[in-house]
Amino acid sequence: MISVQQALHIIDTTLVAHHIKEVNIAKSLGYILAEDISAPINMPSFRQSAMDGYAIIWSEDSYYKITEESKAGEAKQITLQPLEAVRIFTGAKVPETADTVVMQEHVVRDGNTISITKMPRQGANVRPIGEQVHAGELVLKKGTRLNEAAIGFLAGLGISTIAIYKSPKVSVLVTGNELQQHGKPLKEGAIYESNSVMLRMALHRFGIKKVKTFTAKDTLKATKKAIKKALDYGDFLLISGGISVGDYDFVKEALDLNHVDELFYKINQKPGKPLWFGKKDQQFVFALPGNPASALTCFYVYVLPLLKKYAAYPDYHLPRAQAKLHSEFKNTTGKTLFLKAYCKNGSVSVLPSQQSSMLNTFATSNVLVTIPEDVTYLEPQEQVTCIQLDGYGN
Amino acid sequence: MISVQQALHIIDTTLVAHHIKEVNIAKSLGYILAEDISAPINMPSFRQSAMDGYAIIWSEDSYYKITEESKAGEAKQITLQPLEAVRIFTGAKVPETADTVVMQEHVVRDGNTISITKMPRQGANVRPIGEQVHAGELVLKKGTRLNEAAIGFLAGLGISTIAIYKSPKVSVLVTGNELQQHGKPLKEGAIYESNSVMLRMALHRFGIKKVKTFTAKDTLKATKKAIKKALDYGDFLLISGGISVGDYDFVKEALDLNHVDELFYKINQKPGKPLWFGKKDQQFVFALPGNPASALTCFYVYVLPLLKKYAAYPDYHLPRAQAKLHSEFKNTTGKTLFLKAYCKNGSVSVLPSQQSSMLNTFATSNVLVTIPEDVTYLEPQEQVTCIQLDGYGN
Repeated sequence: MISVQQALHIIDTTLVAHHIKEVNIAKSLGYILAEDISAPINMPSFRQSAMDGYAIIWSEDSYYKITEESKAGEAKQITLQPLEAVRIFTGAKVPETADTVVMQEHVVRDGNTISITKMPRQGANVRPIGEQVHAGELVLKKGTRLNEAAIGFLAGLGISTIAIYKSPKVSVLVTGNELQQHGKPLKEGAIYESNSVMLRMALHRFGIKKVKTFTAKDTLKATKKAIKKALDYGDFLLISGGISVGDYDFVKEALDLNHVDELFYKINQKPGKPLWFGKKDQQFVFALPGNPASALTCFYVYVLPLLKKYAAYPDYHLPRAQAKLHSEFKNTTGKTLFLKAYCKNGSVSVLPSQQSSMLNTFATSNVLVTIPEDVTYLEPQEQVTCIQLDGYGN
Repeated sequence: MISVQQALHIIDTTLVAHHIKEVNIAKSLGYILAEDISAPINMPSFRQSAMDGYAIIWSEDSYYKITEESKAGEAKQITLQPLEAVRIFTGAKVPETADTVVMQEHVVRDGNTISITKMPRQGANVRPIGEQVHAGELVLKKGTRLNEAAIGFLAGLGISTIAIYKSPKVSVLVTGNELQQHGKPLKEGAIYESNSVMLRMALHRFGIKKVKTFTAKDTLKATKKAIKKALDYGDFLLISGGISVGDYDFVKEALDLNHVDELFYKINQKPGKPLWFGKKDQQFVFALPGNPASALTCFYVYVLPLLKKYAAYPDYHLPRAQAKLHSEFKNTTGKTLFLKAYCKNGSVSVLPSQQSSMLNTFATSNVLVTIPEDVTYLEPQEQVTCIQLDGYGN
């Protein structure tokens, strides 16, 4: 048995190879950029009006004659003489000889003549070529998480495809003769299988869509065969159940027969003590406890970070924050506790029902409070570390 | 022109009808539950062993004879006599006559006999029927956000379909003759269109998948027709560009011709001043500024909350948090500012490039700092309100 710190250290020091693919930018949301992006064009690529108004060659005169019009999207070649004005709109090309745009609010128009009531400085309201970005300039660094702003920015540069780090494919293997699928009344001694959909939803929420579920009966042969099939599909394999020490828990032996090497087994924590972690070449296997809330706790604390590390997330652990404990708490277990809790405005309440079979408590919690194994008592208002279950930030 | 407070008040007081549909639980992630859920079964539905060990009729004796075995998933009817033991595994059915399970670590086995080294209390390690949930009990309330734990919990109860509040369908209409699609070198005076993919990605990230893009040239006729088509598809219509006061901005007139009623137009804010909001029966229309960063700001502050309100989110605004300003800040505009910023460990730095055309700044920000219109100066370390762009929490 190892400590939570040791288990996290093993997760942190496990080397994970990244895999790169080219995708259309519209398919890149939430991925990590796998290349430096340099601007292929200037933005703007022409001198652009920042206002609706009139383009002129700046002078101390107030009266100008309107000769032309320049609308956004037009490519007209307009040559302007001194004391001439071109009616112009936001985003339109400023005629090459013009140097200033007077905003329409500072102009009185009379037929084809304008009188400028407030002359701006020379050069006003003209966005120079490359004002936002110069062609060739590094604009997004490798390692950037692609959100809607980054993707919109790439689109504005005319970039359609980019290199991203792939997300892992994940196999979920559910073991246990007691598990029954939906649709029929529950048989005596059976329970409805719920971990596969729970894990699939958790994977989906964190951006992993390629998930395949496998099942195995509680025999060594069936478990061994199912693990082999599951390893053929996934970069990661999550096994639910069968890892405790009962006579009919064949998972550990079946993993061994599939040449998956153990990296750790059993952590001094509650819930989730019997977690098993191993690897086979570049594939990673977690055997999770069968109890849903234990399995989900292990998923958040150990599995998800490694999945995100595979996808090259720079911050791959769920974010931690400090909060003040609402009520006192006693830890008589000598284990590190992960407590389902609800945090609001910096104050955190540990929820009742912490048993490992009680998944409904998780449905209403937004953090996991971590109580270290060597802490036996916490007063109300003491600071505790909360693992935030809401996501990875931007 | 109205204030930010007034605009938000209009968003908050706008009545939005909800729509309910039945879905498979595996399609319900991120939706709001539209019905109270009562447990259809007891959990567990039989007396379940909490340990690997031996089931007995409790007595003061230490020696018991093993007569049977009860594995998880089996429905054997085992009748136990005093001083008999049944080998049992976690999750298995406890024989009806047994009342206690002794964990295997507290037993010495010799052939078919066990000697108990540490006798537990009577009733130990037996999970009673309905320990977790009683049949008929209210287990998830209408209004619960469906995360992986809630969905796993429903699966464990054997529930396959549930009623959820629908997300809106969204039309995105992009206007502007200067906009060019990808794939060809940029024409003189043109810019690459980026707002449609940016908005689609933002909608996807917040769980709205049904998005359709429409385009219109800068004529009244084309704009009117495109708005009509877009309203035929979406519950919401987001229009990008064409809402400022230039001679060629037809959006406002075209909305009027489509009988969309204005609820507000122009907010005393920067960026995003020319935001227009209206409704037609139960359809909502936002006309966003054409500048990408302005459009995205308006999306986060006004559009997204109303989309989430439609989907019955109880907390439909993006979460706000207080943070300390890293450096002093001057507001000489008399407007409410939404500043792209990066917040870490409670300290927030306003990023350089705040111009409304600078979308790349958004790509690296995780909050929008709000500076109220009547605040002209903030010292370093002063508290400011940060709109968190990371999501809606659990």
